[in-house]
Amino acid sequence: MYDRIKGFRDFYPGEMVARRATTDALEEVARRYGFREIGTPALERAGMWTDKSGDEIVEELYAFEDQGGRHVTLTPELTPTVARMVVAKQQELSKPIKWFSTRPFWRYEQVQQGRQREFYQTNVDVFGSSEPEADAEVLAWAADALTGLGLTGEHFEFRVSHRDILGGLLETFEAEVDAEAAIRAVDKSEKISRAEYHDLLVDAGLSGSQAAQFDDLVSSGDLEDVVAFADSTRVTEAVENLRAVLAAAEDFGAGEYCTISLETARGLDYYTGVVFECFDSAGEVSRSIFGGGRYDDLIEDFGGQPTPAVGVAPGHATLSLLCQRAGVWPDEEVSTDYYVLQVGDTRPTAGRIARELRDRGHVVESDVAGRSFGAQLDYADSINAETTVIVGERDLENDEVTVKDMGSGDQIQVPVSEFPGEHEAPTFGDFEN
Amino acid sequence: MYDRIKGFRDFYPGEMVARRATTDALEEVARRYGFREIGTPALERAGMWTDKSGDEIVEELYAFEDQGGRHVTLTPELTPTVARMVVAKQQELSKPIKWFSTRPFWRYEQVQQGRQREFYQTNVDVFGSSEPEADAEVLAWAADALTGLGLTGEHFEFRVSHRDILGGLLETFEAEVDAEAAIRAVDKSEKISRAEYHDLLVDAGLSGSQAAQFDDLVSSGDLEDVVAFADSTRVTEAVENLRAVLAAAEDFGAGEYCTISLETARGLDYYTGVVFECFDSAGEVSRSIFGGGRYDDLIEDFGGQPTPAVGVAPGHATLSLLCQRAGVWPDEEVSTDYYVLQVGDTRPTAGRIARELRDRGHVVESDVAGRSFGAQLDYADSINAETTVIVGERDLENDEVTVKDMGSGDQIQVPVSEFPGEHEAPTFGDFEN
Repeated sequence: MYDRIKGFRDFYPGEMVARRATTDALEEVARRYGFREIGTPALERAGMWTDKSGDEIVEELYAFEDQGGRHVTLTPELTPTVARMVVAKQQELSKPIKWFSTRPFWRYEQVQQGRQREFYQTNVDVFGSSEPEADAEVLAWAADALTGLGLTGEHFEFRVSHRDILGGLLETFEAEVDAEAAIRAVDKSEKISRAEYHDLLVDAGLSGSQAAQFDDLVSSGDLEDVVAFADSTRVTEAVENLRAVLAAAEDFGAGEYCTISLETARGLDYYTGVVFECFDSAGEVSRSIFGGGRYDDLIEDFGGQPTPAVGVAPGHATLSLLCQRAGVWPDEEVSTDYYVLQVGDTRPTAGRIARELRDRGHVVESDVAGRSFGAQLDYADSINAETTVIVGERDLENDEVTVKDMGSGDQIQVPVSEFPGEHEAPTFGDFEN
Repeated sequence: MYDRIKGFRDFYPGEMVARRATTDALEEVARRYGFREIGTPALERAGMWTDKSGDEIVEELYAFEDQGGRHVTLTPELTPTVARMVVAKQQELSKPIKWFSTRPFWRYEQVQQGRQREFYQTNVDVFGSSEPEADAEVLAWAADALTGLGLTGEHFEFRVSHRDILGGLLETFEAEVDAEAAIRAVDKSEKISRAEYHDLLVDAGLSGSQAAQFDDLVSSGDLEDVVAFADSTRVTEAVENLRAVLAAAEDFGAGEYCTISLETARGLDYYTGVVFECFDSAGEVSRSIFGGGRYDDLIEDFGGQPTPAVGVAPGHATLSLLCQRAGVWPDEEVSTDYYVLQVGDTRPTAGRIARELRDRGHVVESDVAGRSFGAQLDYADSINAETTVIVGERDLENDEVTVKDMGSGDQIQVPVSEFPGEHEAPTFGDFEN
């Protein structure tokens, strides 16, 4: 009768098992790095995005006026919210501030594989350090998070660059260049033809020959050539910072996943320093899996004290595509330790057994629908129960229950007092002679 | 510069530790009962609520038109969404269907203690069984979830009733009664004066003396009296069903928390059978902590096959009030196993130690901000580090690091090769002679 809204997904239990395992893995690594979980609102003032007009995000907002006349929006990303939170408690928070969270965001954009209008991200950010170690720690978290999912250096790579390399290079041309437009062009360059790319650079203010020269330098990725050509402090310092971040990433165990790629620009205007994107090494997932970088000006833009910041936000949809193609996506299946099957009027005993097994931490189901023996056994199969405990009236007259291994079909009668008794996780094998 | 929207909360790390512990506890118990996690959209068609006009929820919706002209709303509750999901895969899903999820919901209503406009609930539902065991399993989950948080029968009680007891009683009066209005009046009766309550009953169609008689019967809670007075099949069957649910709850270990209370009516019109509310036994939290019940008609209303259903949805805000007053709310503090302190140019060794400790599952921070010895030690204190490992240039010349117990201040030098070496969780005590 009612349909789901386009771009929004329902996750049924099987799919959710895989999604939960993935989220737990990303978050567990974040916790080990000392990133602290925060909780954030789904709605914010729309002005947090619309005040900086021209931003591509604005057209994609789920923005509206609430019953109190506030102009609000479903948040399309986390960064402005965490910036607001840092500003609100700037004095109390001891720095560096290291936060993470996983939650949905919303953008009204074209739905395609790996891109829904409601999408989940795990955001990881460090505030209050401009040192290369902060950038490197974010890279190291990302590397450990991906290897924690079973991925390896054969599956992914981090393409790392620095915003000021492009910005500084653009300054060296004798031209009135709109640097942000040119950087957005670089960000798009892998998705469009060379001619279209050069046109965008020309639109941004370069001449045709300058565009070609710029493209050559950027696509070569040779830092020495870039420093020599630019001969500018800004470019030299950016290259030094990029190298320092990569050296720290090496010490933090993430060096093997990082490559320099000056074409990695990140579309968002708030990035200021090192930027990086994660790509599928095999090239099967063509767009970037996720990206991140340094945004040192945002907190000040939001009215706070100058506070350097760096972060990353893997989106779960593209990540799941990568995991699926690498063959490491978790099985989309529910699992169950015990099904306690009731035959006849045995509910008090079945209830006691189910309770004691749950107290030991197991996943236990029992009949709540008055089903027949056969229907209960089919149901136990459907939930992948490993062991079924049959509590029958006749067995109980002999103070026994039947323990059935669902894999082999083997079963054995055991004293009801021993189930679970002293056993932590009793199975057929524990009672077999 | 930007403020948070009224009724929406930011959760900083300390508060989030407690909120995460609470959510994990509720969900862990749900998993043990074999409830399966699902994921659901934040937005739905507004018609899922507005088509049934007159519902109090409608005025409280965050509803709007999206960029594609769809009338959508932030979901104020989960039940219509899970009903839609059951209808969408009715043929494939093996029954009973047992689902849970934790997520935010949104209602534009008066902000007060324990009630925000964005609020979190853990929803637990069983679909496909009309048996009393299904109702009882939901009660048993709720009881285990609350005791899992450290609460006891001294802190909470479940007031249980059946919708048809009130509905059937109302039918027996010689009057044109608007049963839903009368039941809503009962639901409000504890929050308003007796006179106001009787006025509402009269508004619903009872005479003054009938209202008084009805009030007497309902507030006595005597099932025998009610059955005798009503002398109707509907009431008799409702009482039988209520008793059967309580008997099953007894077998499932939740009997001690349940009391019969005919004044428990639940405001939502979609309830059809047993209903219950959780109250603070000490009466300090005056409103119900949460409620639930049976809603057998909803799936059919949504275009599905007739599918009985029962569920409950504890809201985390009222639950936290109850836990706080009972003294069992988790500490709102972050915890850290190790801080790896760097003095001088020791990053490769510090990085190696941090990595090996993280591989063993510990929460480990190290310097990412180029801080001094003292600043790093202060920071380690601020994150409640249990052990600080000092990696200093001079110690390293002797192949040693210093292990400092942050509680006692005791410290000892140990060979760098032994840290962590074979130790799973090395502390000062492991190296003390």
